[in-house]
Amino acid sequence: MSRKIVLVDPLPRTLDLIMTPEVRARLEALGEIVISEDRPMPDDQVDALLPDTILIFGQTAMPRERLDRAPNLKAIVNVESNFLPNIDYQAAQDRGIWVITPASAFAAPVAEAAVGMAIDLARGITEADRAFRAGTEDYGLAGNAATFRFAGAPVGIVGFGDLGRQFRELIRPFKNEVRVFDPWLPAEILERADCRPATLDEVFQESRVVVVFASVTSENEGFIGAREFSLMQPGSAFLLMSRAAVVNFPEMLEAVRSGHIRAATDVFPDEPVAADDPVRQVPGLLLSAHRTGGTLDAFHAIGAMAVADAELILRGLPPQLCRRADPATAARLRSKPVSVS
Amino acid sequence: MSRKIVLVDPLPRTLDLIMTPEVRARLEALGEIVISEDRPMPDDQVDALLPDTILIFGQTAMPRERLDRAPNLKAIVNVESNFLPNIDYQAAQDRGIWVITPASAFAAPVAEAAVGMAIDLARGITEADRAFRAGTEDYGLAGNAATFRFAGAPVGIVGFGDLGRQFRELIRPFKNEVRVFDPWLPAEILERADCRPATLDEVFQESRVVVVFASVTSENEGFIGAREFSLMQPGSAFLLMSRAAVVNFPEMLEAVRSGHIRAATDVFPDEPVAADDPVRQVPGLLLSAHRTGGTLDAFHAIGAMAVADAELILRGLPPQLCRRADPATAARLRSKPVSVS
Amino acid sequence: MSRKIVLVDPLPRTLDLIMTPEVRARLEALGEIVISEDRPMPDDQVDALLPDTILIFGQTAMPRERLDRAPNLKAIVNVESNFLPNIDYQAAQDRGIWVITPASAFAAPVAEAAVGMAIDLARGITEADRAFRAGTEDYGLAGNAATFRFAGAPVGIVGFGDLGRQFRELIRPFKNEVRVFDPWLPAEILERADCRPATLDEVFQESRVVVVFASVTSENEGFIGAREFSLMQPGSAFLLMSRAAVVNFPEMLEAVRSGHIRAATDVFPDEPVAADDPVRQVPGLLLSAHRTGGTLDAFHAIGAMAVADAELILRGLPPQLCRRADPATAARLRSKPVSVS
Amino acid sequence: MSRKIVLVDPLPRTLDLIMTPEVRARLEALGEIVISEDRPMPDDQVDALLPDTILIFGQTAMPRERLDRAPNLKAIVNVESNFLPNIDYQAAQDRGIWVITPASAFAAPVAEAAVGMAIDLARGITEADRAFRAGTEDYGLAGNAATFRFAGAPVGIVGFGDLGRQFRELIRPFKNEVRVFDPWLPAEILERADCRPATLDEVFQESRVVVVFASVTSENEGFIGAREFSLMQPGSAFLLMSRAAVVNFPEMLEAVRSGHIRAATDVFPDEPVAADDPVRQVPGLLLSAHRTGGTLDAFHAIGAMAVADAELILRGLPPQLCRRADPATAARLRSKPVSVS
Repeated sequence: MSRKIVLVDPLPRTLDLIMTPEVRARLEALGEIVISEDRPMPDDQVDALLPDTILIFGQTAMPRERLDRAPNLKAIVNVESNFLPNIDYQAAQDRGIWVITPASAFAAPVAEAAVGMAIDLARGITEADRAFRAGTEDYGLAGNAATFRFAGAPVGIVGFGDLGRQFRELIRPFKNEVRVFDPWLPAEILERADCRPATLDEVFQESRVVVVFASVTSENEGFIGAREFSLMQPGSAFLLMSRAAVVNFPEMLEAVRSGHIRAATDVFPDEPVAADDPVRQVPGLLLSAHRTGGTLDAFHAIGAMAVADAELILRGLPPQLCRRADPATAARLRSKPVSVS
Repeated sequence: MSRKIVLVDPLPRTLDLIMTPEVRARLEALGEIVISEDRPMPDDQVDALLPDTILIFGQTAMPRERLDRAPNLKAIVNVESNFLPNIDYQAAQDRGIWVITPASAFAAPVAEAAVGMAIDLARGITEADRAFRAGTEDYGLAGNAATFRFAGAPVGIVGFGDLGRQFRELIRPFKNEVRVFDPWLPAEILERADCRPATLDEVFQESRVVVVFASVTSENEGFIGAREFSLMQPGSAFLLMSRAAVVNFPEMLEAVRSGHIRAATDVFPDEPVAADDPVRQVPGLLLSAHRTGGTLDAFHAIGAMAVADAELILRGLPPQLCRRADPATAARLRSKPVSVS
Repeated sequence: MSRKIVLVDPLPRTLDLIMTPEVRARLEALGEIVISEDRPMPDDQVDALLPDTILIFGQTAMPRERLDRAPNLKAIVNVESNFLPNIDYQAAQDRGIWVITPASAFAAPVAEAAVGMAIDLARGITEADRAFRAGTEDYGLAGNAATFRFAGAPVGIVGFGDLGRQFRELIRPFKNEVRVFDPWLPAEILERADCRPATLDEVFQESRVVVVFASVTSENEGFIGAREFSLMQPGSAFLLMSRAAVVNFPEMLEAVRSGHIRAATDVFPDEPVAADDPVRQVPGLLLSAHRTGGTLDAFHAIGAMAVADAELILRGLPPQLCRRADPATAARLRSKPVSVS
Repeated sequence: MSRKIVLVDPLPRTLDLIMTPEVRARLEALGEIVISEDRPMPDDQVDALLPDTILIFGQTAMPRERLDRAPNLKAIVNVESNFLPNIDYQAAQDRGIWVITPASAFAAPVAEAAVGMAIDLARGITEADRAFRAGTEDYGLAGNAATFRFAGAPVGIVGFGDLGRQFRELIRPFKNEVRVFDPWLPAEILERADCRPATLDEVFQESRVVVVFASVTSENEGFIGAREFSLMQPGSAFLLMSRAAVVNFPEMLEAVRSGHIRAATDVFPDEPVAADDPVRQVPGLLLSAHRTGGTLDAFHAIGAMAVADAELILRGLPPQLCRRADPATAARLRSKPVSVS
C-alpha cells in the first residue's frame, strides 16, 4: 500500500466544530487526510480512495461491495453519533472493521442539564421566576406550596445507558432512592450503581421525579402515555431528555395541562416547533429547544474520542471510548438523522 | 422545684409549623408545656414562670435580671433561627445556660436550590424557557451560544458555614475546582472539604460561578459591589443566597443589566418587592422571592433539632444539632428579625 | 499590658514533635514565646508570667486562683489531647477563656489503620502471612475458608466521635450497612452519615465487624464483655481502637481464644505489655502496640491545629479545629495522662 | 431444531462452586442441560451435541470445524475466566457467536484485599503484629518509625482494567494522587477516573505505593525489575496482585531483602511454593497464597454473570457483564490455565 488515506466525510458536522486544533493535529498524524466538508463526499471520489483508505470519519455509505474494495480499512467512525442503515454492519464485523461512534459525548451535558431541570421542577425555580416577573410571587413558605425537596425524593430512570448512568452519578449527594427500568440490562448493572431494578409501572408509581433517557427502537415508540402518567403521584415531575417518539406527546401535554404533573422536555415531535404551537404556552412545562446535549464541549468531545480510538485501533488495540455498532441492536434503533447541529 | 416548665414562645413561628405530631409528642415529654402562640408571651406571665422554667423555646427577651430569676433554666432554644440582641449572652454562658438555634435547618433546601440555580445560570435553562415561550428559541448548538458547562467550571464560595459546606458536598460529582473566601475560618477547614482558600478578589477573578452564602455582620455590609463584579469574567454567574445587605444591590443589578454577568438572587433589600420595582424585568436575572430556605421540611427540621438537643441537655449532655450563641460573634451578627415565615 | 506572653509548657510533647518549622514560625508571631520543655514549667515562673500571658500551650495547672491572676489570658490549648482535672473549667468558661485541645489530630491515622485492620480480619491477611511463613498456607478457595468479604458486610460502630465518623467516611466505597451505638448523640447525627442508630445489643448481633472507638467515662468502664461477645455471629471481627478500659479485656481474649470471633486491639490494660503476657500468643488476634494514632503527621497536626485556632482566638473569633472543654462532660471523661508519646 | 442444548463443561470449576441454587435454576430454564463435571466432556459427546447446542458454559475446545457444526450456537461462556487458545475466536466472531468470560468476578475481592494490603504495608500492620509476638514491639511514635500514612500518599497503578478501576474507586476517601500506567488505554479513560496518565517510570518514581494489576502478554513478561524498583523512593510499598510473570520475581525479592522497599505478593512463579523456598522468610514481604481473588462470593459471581448474560444473548441482546474475547487481543494474552481453584 503506497498511501494511508484517512477519509473525512463528516457532514452534518464539520471538522472545526468537532476538533480543537490539538485534536486536529492528532488526526493529521494518522495518515493522509482527504476531506469533504461542504458536501457529502461524491461517490466516485469515495470509490477511488477506498483501496488505500485505513480510516473513515463520517457517515459515508459503506455497503458490502464497498467494504470489499477497502482491504486496508480498519475503522469507520460515525461522528454524527447515530448509526445509519447505510452500512452493512455484519459484513464490517466479519472483516474485522470496527464501526464505532462517540455517541456518549452528549451524555455529560444532557445529564447535567437534567439535574438542573429536575431540581427546577421540584423546587419551582423557573415558575417562580415567571411569577416574579408577573408580579405574583409568594415569599417564604407560601412560595413553596406546590414544591418538594429533590433531596431524598424517589427518582425513577427509564433507560440506563450513558445518559442514565451519568445522571445517576450526578445526583448521588442528594441521596435519592433510584429505581430504573431498562429491559436491555441485567439487574446486576443497576444494582452496582445502587439502583433498584423496577418495572415501568413501579417507576411511574413510586417516583416523584421520572427521567426518560431511553432511545427509540422499533418496539418502544410511544410506550409512555396517559396510562403511565396517571400512575404518577400528583405534583410529581417528568423529564423527557432523549427522543420525543418514546412518549405519546399529546398525552404528556394533557397530563401537564391538567395540573396532575409538571414536566420538562428537551425534544419535540417536530423540530423546530411551529410558531403557533400551543405547547409554547403550557404552564407547568419547562421548555428546552433540543439544546441540552449540543454544547461546544460535547462537539469537541466527539472529535477527541474519535481520534483517540482511531489511534488505538491503528495500534491493533480495541477502542475504549466509542460505542461499537452491534449488528443485532443497530437494526433495532430508529433514529432520525440530525439535520441541524 | 415542684414544676418543670417548658416555656414555648415561638412567634413568628407556630408549633404546628415547626413540629410534626411525633416531634410535638417528644416536646411534651420534656416537662409541663406553657405556650403563647397568638402573641408573644406577656412579660408578667414570663416572669411568673421563670423560677420553675427548665427550657425556653422561642425568642423571649432574657436580660440578666430575668436569667437571675431562672435558677433551673438549662437552655434557651431560639426557633426563629437568628440570634437577637434581647438576651444577655455572656450572662447566660456564665450560668451554664445553653443558648442555641437550629439555624442550619435551612441550609439543606437553600444549598439544593443553589445547585439548581447554578446549573440554570450556566446552561441558560430559565432563559431558554422564556425564549421558547416568546417564540425566539434557538435549537442545538445555536441555543448554547452564551452558556457554559457547570461541570468542571471553577466555582467560588463566599462564606463557608452550613450553607456553603452543604452546597460544596452537593456539587462534588461535577468536579469543579472550588475556591472559598471566609475570613472567619482557618485554611484547614476549607482544605478538608477539598476547597482552596482564596482572597475575595481571587474568588471573583477565577470563578465562573460565584455563590454568596455569607451572613451580614457589622463589618461586611455591602462588601461586594461594582469593583468585585468587574473582576468577574464576562458571562460568569453570580448567586446571592443569604442576605441582600452583603452586596451593593444596585451595583449587582447594573452588572447584570450591562450583560457582563448573569445572576440569581433569593433576597432583596426590601421584601416584599414593590410592584413596580424595575428589578422584575431585568434580563439575565433569575428571581426568587426569598423562598429557597422556607420549605416545609426545613420548618419541621427546626422543631426536630430543637427538641433533640433539648433532650440531650436535660440528660446533662451537650447539644449536637443546634448552633451555640457565641457571645463575641453574636454581637457582630446583624440580621433583621423575620417578619413573615 | 507591656508584654504579650505565649506560655509554652508542652510536656510530654515537645515543640519539635508537634510543630513543623512553618507552624513554629506562626507560633512565634503570636507573641513573646516562653518555653519550658525539659521539665514542666516551675510554679513560680508560671505565676510570674500569668499577668502578661495571652495564650498557654500545654497542660499547666490552672486552678481558679491562677485564672484570677491572668486577666489577659484568651486561651489554654492542651497539646497532649486529653483534658486533665488540673483546670477549673467552669471558671475558665465564666471568664471567656477558651480551653481547647486538638484531640481529633489522632482520628485520621487511627481511622485509617482501623480500615486496614478490619479488612485484615475479614480477609485473614496477617493470619495468611503467618501461615505462609509456617509452611501451612492454603491456596485459592481453600485459603478463604474462614474469611468473608469486607465489602457489603454489616459493620457496627461503638462511639461516633471524630474517630467513628472518619472511619465511616473511609469505608463508604465498600457499601456496608453501618449501625452505630452512641448514647451521647441524637439519631439525626447518625442518619446524616447514613448510619442506623442501634442499641449496643443490635450492634453486636447484626454486625460482622464491630469497631469500638468509645472513650472511657465514669459510666462505661468494661461495658463490653462476655455477654456482648456471645451475641456476635461466629467468625465475626471485633476491633478495639480506643481505650482498653471500655472492654472486659480477659473476656475479649477468651472470646478470641475459643475461636468464636477474631479481634484486633491497639490498646492493652497495662502498657507496655509484660514480656511473658500470654496475650502475645493468642491466635486470631491482631496485635498493635498502641501505635495506630501516634504517627508523625498526627503530632504535626496537633501543633498546626493549636496554632491555627490560637490565631482565630486572638482575632476575636471562635476556634474551629480544636475541641472545647465542656465543663459538664470534661468531668465524666476518665483518661490516664499519656506517659510516653 | 428439536432440542435446545446447553452444554456445561466447566472444569476446573464445578456447577456447585459457581452457582447458588437460585442461579442454577435460572441456568436450567435456558434449555436442556447436559453436564460433564467429573472429567472434561469427551470429544464424541461434544460432537454429537453440537448441532442442537445453543450455549456452551465451559472451556470446551471449539476450533473452526466444530463451530461449523454448531449452527444454533449463540455463545460460549468461559467460566474459568482466562481465554484459552483452543477456540477460533475470529471464526466465532464471523458467525456472530459471542465468546465471553465473567473474569471481572474476581476483581472485587482482589481490589478489596489490595486496599487492606496497601494500608498494611504503609502502616506496618502485619510486621507490628509479628514484632509483638516476638516481644520486640514499639509503642506509639516509636512504633511508627518506618511507616507512612496511606491517606494522601501518591499511588501508582500498573494496569487499569477491572481490578485497577475497582481499587481506584475503593481508595477515593483516602484522597491519594493516583498515577496510572496502561499502554492499552487512552488518557481520557484514566482522567475520567481522576487519575493521571503516566509513564512506567513516573509511576515508580513518584508513588509511595505501586500496585500491579497488569495481565501478562507476550510483550510484557518481566517488564518490572531491578531498574524499576531502584526508581522507587526508599521505604515505599509495592504490591503484586495479578500475575507473577509481569515482574522479575528474584529482583523484586532482592529489592525487599535489601530494605529498599516493602512488598506484598499474592502470586508466585511456581505455585504451590516449595516448602523450603526462602521467599517464606523474607522480612518486609507480605505473603498471600494466590488467595485474594478466590473467595466463595467471587465464584458465585462467575455463575451469576454467566447466566445473566446468556439470558440476554438468547433474547437477542448483547451481554453486559462478561468480557468479550477480542480476536486481536486474545492472541496477546498469555495466561496459564488454572489447575486448582
